[in-house]
Amino acid sequence: MAKANPNFSLLKGSYLFAEIARRVKEFTEADPQGASGLIRLGIGDVTQPLAPAVIEALHAAVDEMAHTATFRGYGPDYGYDFLVNAIREHDYGARGIDLAYDEVFVSDGSKCDVGNFQELFSGDCVVAVTDPVYPVYVDTSAMAGRAGRLSDSGVWDRLIYLPCHEGNGFIPSLPAAPVDIIYLCYPNNPTGTTLTRGQLKAWVDYAKDCGAVILYDAAYRAYITREGIPRSIYEVEGADEVAVEFCSFSKTAGFTGMRCAYTVVPHKVTVAGERGERLALNALWKRRQTTKFNGVSYPVQRGAAAVYTPEGRRQTEHTVAYYMENARIIGEGLRAQGLTVYGGVDAPYIWLKTPRGMDSWAFFDLLLREARIVGTPGVGFGPSGEGYVRLTAFNTRENTVRATERFAKIR
Amino acid sequence: MAKANPNFSLLKGSYLFAEIARRVKEFTEADPQGASGLIRLGIGDVTQPLAPAVIEALHAAVDEMAHTATFRGYGPDYGYDFLVNAIREHDYGARGIDLAYDEVFVSDGSKCDVGNFQELFSGDCVVAVTDPVYPVYVDTSAMAGRAGRLSDSGVWDRLIYLPCHEGNGFIPSLPAAPVDIIYLCYPNNPTGTTLTRGQLKAWVDYAKDCGAVILYDAAYRAYITREGIPRSIYEVEGADEVAVEFCSFSKTAGFTGMRCAYTVVPHKVTVAGERGERLALNALWKRRQTTKFNGVSYPVQRGAAAVYTPEGRRQTEHTVAYYMENARIIGEGLRAQGLTVYGGVDAPYIWLKTPRGMDSWAFFDLLLREARIVGTPGVGFGPSGEGYVRLTAFNTRENTVRATERFAKIR
Repeated sequence: MAKANPNFSLLKGSYLFAEIARRVKEFTEADPQGASGLIRLGIGDVTQPLAPAVIEALHAAVDEMAHTATFRGYGPDYGYDFLVNAIREHDYGARGIDLAYDEVFVSDGSKCDVGNFQELFSGDCVVAVTDPVYPVYVDTSAMAGRAGRLSDSGVWDRLIYLPCHEGNGFIPSLPAAPVDIIYLCYPNNPTGTTLTRGQLKAWVDYAKDCGAVILYDAAYRAYITREGIPRSIYEVEGADEVAVEFCSFSKTAGFTGMRCAYTVVPHKVTVAGERGERLALNALWKRRQTTKFNGVSYPVQRGAAAVYTPEGRRQTEHTVAYYMENARIIGEGLRAQGLTVYGGVDAPYIWLKTPRGMDSWAFFDLLLREARIVGTPGVGFGPSGEGYVRLTAFNTRENTVRATERFAKIR
Repeated sequence: MAKANPNFSLLKGSYLFAEIARRVKEFTEADPQGASGLIRLGIGDVTQPLAPAVIEALHAAVDEMAHTATFRGYGPDYGYDFLVNAIREHDYGARGIDLAYDEVFVSDGSKCDVGNFQELFSGDCVVAVTDPVYPVYVDTSAMAGRAGRLSDSGVWDRLIYLPCHEGNGFIPSLPAAPVDIIYLCYPNNPTGTTLTRGQLKAWVDYAKDCGAVILYDAAYRAYITREGIPRSIYEVEGADEVAVEFCSFSKTAGFTGMRCAYTVVPHKVTVAGERGERLALNALWKRRQTTKFNGVSYPVQRGAAAVYTPEGRRQTEHTVAYYMENARIIGEGLRAQGLTVYGGVDAPYIWLKTPRGMDSWAFFDLLLREARIVGTPGVGFGPSGEGYVRLTAFNTRENTVRATERFAKIR
C-alpha cells in the first residue's frame, strides 16, 4: 500500500498568505467602498512591463519557432550558450569573477532551485536560516525531513535560527553549534537589509572551518545602490569553495511571469561522500537537473539574454530605479511621520517597526482598516519578525505616494 | 560538515546518450564525408515548427507583457484558468471525463513532474516499472533511494521490473509481489506499443486491490490512430481512485523547446498516512508545487491554450499526422525488407528487432557505419530492450524516406 511522505504532514497549511487573503476578503466584503481604494504593498511582485529590448527579443524568438529552419526543440538542460555566456560576462566577469561555462545553470526560477538544491544533501544535514526568513527555505527543509517538528510557537526544533533584529543591526551571529547548510539572502527578504563584504567574509570563513555550504540567494542584488555592498558572494575571497549562488531575472528584469533564473555552482564546492571522499556539488546538480529538468523555454532565454544588451540594461535599470524611488518615498515618508523603518536603500523591501509595540497582525489589521493598505505581517517570516510589517516598493508611483500619505491616518 | 545524498553515488553517469554521442563523434571524425549524410532517428525530439495559431497567441501574450495595463507578474502556481479550463474541456470533458478545476496542475514539463511526484511518497514504497522503460522513472527512483543498488547487469535490486517482449506481446504482467507505485507509459516509450482498455483495466483493478498508485504517462496520446485505444487512463472505470496522469504539449504540439505540460491528480486518489489515515495526493501535490514551483511562463501558457482553438487543433493534428506518416513509411519499409518492427501505429516510435539476433549496440554500430543512421540501442532502456533499436518518426519526410531506403544496405 502506497504511503505518504511523513514530512508533508508536519507542515501547516500555507498559513501566511491564505490568512492575509482571508482578512482582506472580510474587509472588502464589509466595506466595498473603502476596499475600492485598497493599495497592496504585500506580495513581492513587480508591476512594470518588460523592457522594450526584452519584448523585441521575445518576438524574434517566437518567429524563429514558426519556421522549420530556425525551430528549436529540446534545448540544453543547463541553458543556451548565448545566455550562459552573457551571465558570465556581465554579472561576473565585469566584477572580476571568472566562472567556467559549466558553473552556470539556467532554470525556471530561484524558488525552484533553492528548494530542489536540498536534494543533493544527506538527510541528516543541519540547516541554519536567518530569522525572519523567506519561508521557502524553511518549508523545503521540512519537506526533506531536516526541520524536525513545528512547535506551537512556530519554531522548528531541528532548524538553527539566526535571529536578525534591531539589537544586532539585523546582522546574524555565527551559529553556536556546527551547521551543514546555511541559507543567506542578501539584500534580505524580508528586512531589506544587507551585509558588507566583511560581514559576509565571516560567513565564508565559518563555512570553510566547519565544512558547511552556503546557499546564497541574491535575487535582489539589482537593487543595491550603495558602493561596497557585495552583489555576489563570490566577491568574497574563498566563497567559490563554499557557496552556491541563486540569481533571478524576476526582480532584476520583471520576469516573475516569464520564469527565468540561474544558479552558480562552482566546481570547487564539495561535500563529503559516504567514505569521506569529496564530491563536487556541481556534478551532483548536473545529475539532478539532467534527470528532473528539461531546460527553460527558448524565447524566455532569448528575452533574458536581451537584458544584457546596452538597451536592455538601460531599460531594466530604469525600472529598478523607479521601484527604488518608491522605496525612498516610503522610507522617508514614514520616518518623517516618526515611524521606525529599515531596508529600502539596497532592496525593494521596507521593514517597518510597528508603533507602540503592536504585534504584527494587530498592526496589519489597523493598516488595512484605517489606511486601506495591505502589508505582510513580519511574524509570518519567523518569530523574530514579530512587531514588524513588510512593505514593498513594487507598486506604481501614484499608489506608493498615496499609501505613504495614508500612514498619517493611523498615527 | 555537509554530506552528500548517498543515493546520487549509486547512479552511473548518463551512460546511454553520452555513449551514443561518443560513437557518433568517433564515426564522423573517421569519415567526415559519410557523416555529412547522417540521419538522426535517435532522440525523441520534434522538428516541425509551432502551429501558426500558437505563434499568434505567443506574440499577443508578449505584447501584453509590454504594457503596464496588461502586464502579468506571478501567475497561479497551478496554471491560468484559461489553460486549465481548455484542458478540462477538450482533453477530458469531450471524452466524458469530468475533472474538477483543481485536479489539473500546469507545469513546465512532464519530465519534471514524473520525477518530482515521487517526493509525495514515503521512502520505503516499492516501485514497479515496465522493462524497457523511459530512464527518468528509474533514475528518479534511484535518487530517492527506492531503487536499491545497481548490479553489473544493469538491474536495480529494489525495483520491480515488468518485462515487455515479443513473448507477451509487450503486455506487462501484474507484479508477483505487491508494489506501491507503478509507472506506466502508454502509448509506450520506447516500444511504441499500447494497452487496450481491458488491459489497462487489469492494472486499475490491481492498484485498487493492493492500494498502489499508478503514475500514468500519456505524453504520446496525440499519436493514437486506432479506435478503442484509451487516450487517458480515466477512460477506465475506477482509475480516478488510483491513477495520476502526466500529459505534455511537447509531442502533441511541438513544445519541447517551449516547456508546458500538465498533471492530473484526482481528489479521490489517496495514500496512507502514518496512522493509517488516508491522505489525498491532490493536497500533497498542491503543497509541493506551491512550495517549490512558481508556475509556467505566461506567454507559453497562452501558446498552449491556442492548441485547443479550432485552428490550433487542425494545425497540430496536421503535424502529428505528418510524423505518423513518417512512422508508417519506416514501419512498412522495414517490414518489406523482411525486418521485424513493433509500434509506429499509435506512437511516434518504432521498436525494431535487430536482425540475426545481433545485440543492440552491435546493430547500432552497423546502422551507423553502413547506413549512416543514428538509432537508440534498446538495451539502454532496460534489460528487456536488448536485441532492439528504437527509431523515431520525428525527422523530416525526406530524411525519413531516405533512411528507410538505406536499411537495405545492411541486409
